[in-house]
Amino acid sequence: MIAEVVATGDEIRTGALVDTNSAWLSRKIEAMGITVSRHACVGDDPAAITGVLTEIGDRADIAVVTGGLGPTGDDLTCEAAARAAGVSLELNAGVLDMIRNYFAGRKLPMPDSNRKQALLPRGAAVLENPVGTAPGFSLTIGRCRFWFMPGVPFEMKRMFRDQVRPIIDGMMGPNRRAHLNRTLSVFGLTESATEDRLRGLEQAFPGIKLGLRAKFPEIQVKLYGAGSDREALSNQMRAVEAWIAHRLGDRIFSMDGESMAAVVGRLLRHRKATLALAESCTGGLIANWMTDVPGSSDYFLLSAVTYANDAKSAVLGVSPGTIIRHGAVSVETATAMATGVRRIAGATYGLSVSGIAGPGGGTAEKPVGTVCIALAGPVATNGTQVRLNFASRDMNKSMFAMKAMDLLRRELMGQG
Amino acid sequence: MIAEVVATGDEIRTGALVDTNSAWLSRKIEAMGITVSRHACVGDDPAAITGVLTEIGDRADIAVVTGGLGPTGDDLTCEAAARAAGVSLELNAGVLDMIRNYFAGRKLPMPDSNRKQALLPRGAAVLENPVGTAPGFSLTIGRCRFWFMPGVPFEMKRMFRDQVRPIIDGMMGPNRRAHLNRTLSVFGLTESATEDRLRGLEQAFPGIKLGLRAKFPEIQVKLYGAGSDREALSNQMRAVEAWIAHRLGDRIFSMDGESMAAVVGRLLRHRKATLALAESCTGGLIANWMTDVPGSSDYFLLSAVTYANDAKSAVLGVSPGTIIRHGAVSVETATAMATGVRRIAGATYGLSVSGIAGPGGGTAEKPVGTVCIALAGPVATNGTQVRLNFASRDMNKSMFAMKAMDLLRRELMGQG
Repeated sequence: MIAEVVATGDEIRTGALVDTNSAWLSRKIEAMGITVSRHACVGDDPAAITGVLTEIGDRADIAVVTGGLGPTGDDLTCEAAARAAGVSLELNAGVLDMIRNYFAGRKLPMPDSNRKQALLPRGAAVLENPVGTAPGFSLTIGRCRFWFMPGVPFEMKRMFRDQVRPIIDGMMGPNRRAHLNRTLSVFGLTESATEDRLRGLEQAFPGIKLGLRAKFPEIQVKLYGAGSDREALSNQMRAVEAWIAHRLGDRIFSMDGESMAAVVGRLLRHRKATLALAESCTGGLIANWMTDVPGSSDYFLLSAVTYANDAKSAVLGVSPGTIIRHGAVSVETATAMATGVRRIAGATYGLSVSGIAGPGGGTAEKPVGTVCIALAGPVATNGTQVRLNFASRDMNKSMFAMKAMDLLRRELMGQG
Repeated sequence: MIAEVVATGDEIRTGALVDTNSAWLSRKIEAMGITVSRHACVGDDPAAITGVLTEIGDRADIAVVTGGLGPTGDDLTCEAAARAAGVSLELNAGVLDMIRNYFAGRKLPMPDSNRKQALLPRGAAVLENPVGTAPGFSLTIGRCRFWFMPGVPFEMKRMFRDQVRPIIDGMMGPNRRAHLNRTLSVFGLTESATEDRLRGLEQAFPGIKLGLRAKFPEIQVKLYGAGSDREALSNQMRAVEAWIAHRLGDRIFSMDGESMAAVVGRLLRHRKATLALAESCTGGLIANWMTDVPGSSDYFLLSAVTYANDAKSAVLGVSPGTIIRHGAVSVETATAMATGVRRIAGATYGLSVSGIAGPGGGTAEKPVGTVCIALAGPVATNGTQVRLNFASRDMNKSMFAMKAMDLLRRELMGQG
């Protein structure tokens, strides 16, 4: 079975926007054991879209198309698809109801332009969009089955996972091979160091393909397994995981793509512990990550983002003398911040970060990239100073935040 | 003149790597006044590459291709290009010297495999690679002139800027046109409502193309202008901006792609004002956005991310009675949080957000999506309750955070 991927839209054609949808879809389709042979991108031009759909209809078995399903005048994919399939557009009453309900549920009036989204090529099967107004649809053009989805990544991803993948999976019939993918998340090793340690994996485990992906500040180890027997494959995957765990040890923080915040949250919940943060240079990023996890209010109590020195004293009770003597970025100040926030919040753990994310603020003694992290717990308080320096303020913030969370993770796992 | 862009490589075809080269090249080529009509990606498969090059040779005037010029066995672009052009590969002595010099200059032995990189299609014009071993080349296939460049972004970019762009520029002769693009950022209108208000723009301003992009929670209005006279185009663009400003008013928060946090930061700096935040459901997201702006320590003092009710009392001095009587998500509690954080930090403004981001925590009276925002300033304190509800916790967090920042922006602009 041969698949192709198409992105439409002037913003992608002109390069104003990088097309990440096609890479995501290709990964998912390849992971099902189907070869993606080609990607294409054309702009918001019905003739160009019709042209590319007709070509693909002649040579591929399945194709996924993103973009151009919105309510506005430059959303022309429906029209182009109808033309390529040689059918007319018709108003789909069910879709119109879905769009009406979307607006009614939000107590918003439905703009006239959204009515257009209910015009679908005759014979198209509707793909519901529970998280937006643009429905998707599937349609056969030439010898190829097409799925048309919105360009907004989270709408597209949900539609693909819930409605498109199961159908493609069903189409594969007896050609279906068992496929098993794993994502192991690693922190504290570079991509090349990770690669060095995993050398020999593909030789030791035929049928398992290894892929490394830098998702700063973590490295994701991707394992793609394929075989005719699901159980044998599943056993082999467990053996690979053990092989990797032996080589990477506690640098692996999750075995199933779980985020660092979710891992730390799970450990806190398991220990019936609570957390309070005192952030300076990370500017609320750790709190933001921690509170992205549903249910985090069970263990996350407070983050005091004390950017100004006066705020460190007023909120956390850090003595101004400590800041003057040692500086805001010092193990002494970080320790006072951690114990201060733990006391104020009545939390099991107080975790603090104070550092220089740059581009300004560095000195000869404490250059950009210097960060002090302290963890105050029921038994002990530890402070540490590290120098890391990456290309940008954003990267330094992420790295500092991740480093602090990893310290807490190790403490909670009893590996402090 | 019609241009196309091609990326080759299995890592892009399978989605292991997102193709950023094609977007970069498209931006550069469009900026020269040439329409990029299509992008394509194929893997490391000579037949597939030959196929796509032959097709493009039939329909485009110029094309740029990246990837597959390296020394390894899966670098097959030269072979495919020669086949598409109907010529043989031949050893280019000049290129062999360049590769030898590259290694000699780095005092490294030259691996045998690099010799392969000196095999170019007969008749190809060499593009030097001063920063890597893979030379590029240009070649005519069908009616189209092709430039083949390495896939490593910094090698490709340098080659394009120094050697490809000047040649394309020379080819354009009297057809050269001026191009001007703008991005206006809008908050507080849906994509369709924005389009409704901008209806008639393209009719009123021929030569300006309008594109809307939802970058949740904001809408970006993109303007693409083209004309023969740069000054006339620049005047027309200013007229379009005024036309749009008249229709969208203060829903426009930036005229040049600047983020909401940067705009608010600029206004605070201009007013010599400082900011302290009390965040609950946004979990540090506003602080994180504010501190992504370099130099934000000049005006950003503190965010108290008081997730737990006790923390609201302990850190911000919110009376437990207020929380019990009105609830944590109430105008009364939000107001006490805003005034509390303003007092503690000694800030000009105290801004607070308390709401229910979901998925849990909603009630009949206060469903998921309810948010209370208060702003305490030198003159007045205002609290407001709004219901918004989007598909996910993440989206609600972003929308609540943006709404709060927009409130502050309006206050700072004197439109409170």
